[in-house]
Amino acid sequence: MRIALLGGTGDIGQGLALRWGFHTDHELLIGSRDPEKARNKAEEYETELDSRGVETNIKGFENAMAADRARVVVLSVPAYHLVDTIDAVADRLDEETTVVTPAVGMKRDDDGLHYNRPGAGSVAALAADALDDNVPLVGAFHNLPAGRLANLDADFEWDTLVFGDDDDAKGLVSDLAEEIAGLRAVDVGGLANAAEVEAVTPLLINIAMNNDGLHDLGVRFQ
Amino acid sequence: MRIALLGGTGDIGQGLALRWGFHTDHELLIGSRDPEKARNKAEEYETELDSRGVETNIKGFENAMAADRARVVVLSVPAYHLVDTIDAVADRLDEETTVVTPAVGMKRDDDGLHYNRPGAGSVAALAADALDDNVPLVGAFHNLPAGRLANLDADFEWDTLVFGDDDDAKGLVSDLAEEIAGLRAVDVGGLANAAEVEAVTPLLINIAMNNDGLHDLGVRFQ
Repeated sequence: MRIALLGGTGDIGQGLALRWGFHTDHELLIGSRDPEKARNKAEEYETELDSRGVETNIKGFENAMAADRARVVVLSVPAYHLVDTIDAVADRLDEETTVVTPAVGMKRDDDGLHYNRPGAGSVAALAADALDDNVPLVGAFHNLPAGRLANLDADFEWDTLVFGDDDDAKGLVSDLAEEIAGLRAVDVGGLANAAEVEAVTPLLINIAMNNDGLHDLGVRFQ
Repeated sequence: MRIALLGGTGDIGQGLALRWGFHTDHELLIGSRDPEKARNKAEEYETELDSRGVETNIKGFENAMAADRARVVVLSVPAYHLVDTIDAVADRLDEETTVVTPAVGMKRDDDGLHYNRPGAGSVAALAADALDDNVPLVGAFHNLPAGRLANLDADFEWDTLVFGDDDDAKGLVSDLAEEIAGLRAVDVGGLANAAEVEAVTPLLINIAMNNDGLHDLGVRFQ
């Protein structure tokens, strides 16, 4: 399956690219606003996987080129670039493309990190508003510590919470998530349930800030 | 240590009473607006613990009597009774009493449960506003599935997220939490970080609503 990771040069994009490269045969396209940067990162990921004996074919493109004809497009960009990124690739997306948002909005104050809930109700709702109505949107991969995800020597047992109003698209993304060893996809319902998922990420950072031994944690519901 | 569980006839109060009764020698006082109901529940908890060979001395009182001279007062009441309950016992609380709030505010719609964030910023902030400034307040025990907590045959490995602006009080409550086998106390900072903790509870319910095998779950950060 062709998967485009827009903003795939960033930390969560890197983690997903390396894990899917390691555990699957999917065709991975790294997108960036800067195609040169995308190509360099794609090569870096290939080199890393090659050093572990995994032959891959990861390519870098400008975001719109990466999104073109991808079956799944992951918007692995910061929340403040989410709508820009969608606008830049909108004419490459249709009802056959499943768009995935892992973005969360946070603000920092003296106490810690806080969920910065947009007026639309969630960051995912901002993405839904920016997309054409016929393009399925799924939320997933919000609460994963990017550094540990990208470290192929690290094992984990984490959940990723998956939401969306299109059950087929949600199932597709859940299957992709579970192809990553140690990751379980947990359905939390529709887009209206996004905010409580997005709010877990600042909580993870507050835990790291207040506990020496508890950095780079994911979450497991058990 | 004398621990009062106000609203201790309810589900989270029952779970804490049974677990502390089972694992510790603390003096447990069950509070209710109705002292007769409190006495009946206290007797029920004693009977349950006695059937497992644990001798306890759990007493039931009207809430203000239960709070009187307790070292720790747990407000195990629904969020909409939190301020009422504080007002009813306020003259029994002072700087020697640590008050604990596990309350969360939720609303339900067709999609699921949602965090109903009060204008004060969090349910805990409502409690802080209602308490005299010299009474230490700690948030803890929010995200525990009450039924499994109260079932002494059930094992678990859960985290409880603990927050508050008084470090001594927070340490005291963390120690009490960890006296329950399988429960780890995780510091998330001050009262200003309460909302992200309280928002995890509707998320747990949304998970249960959307996944057959995932009821009565707690959360573990790992």
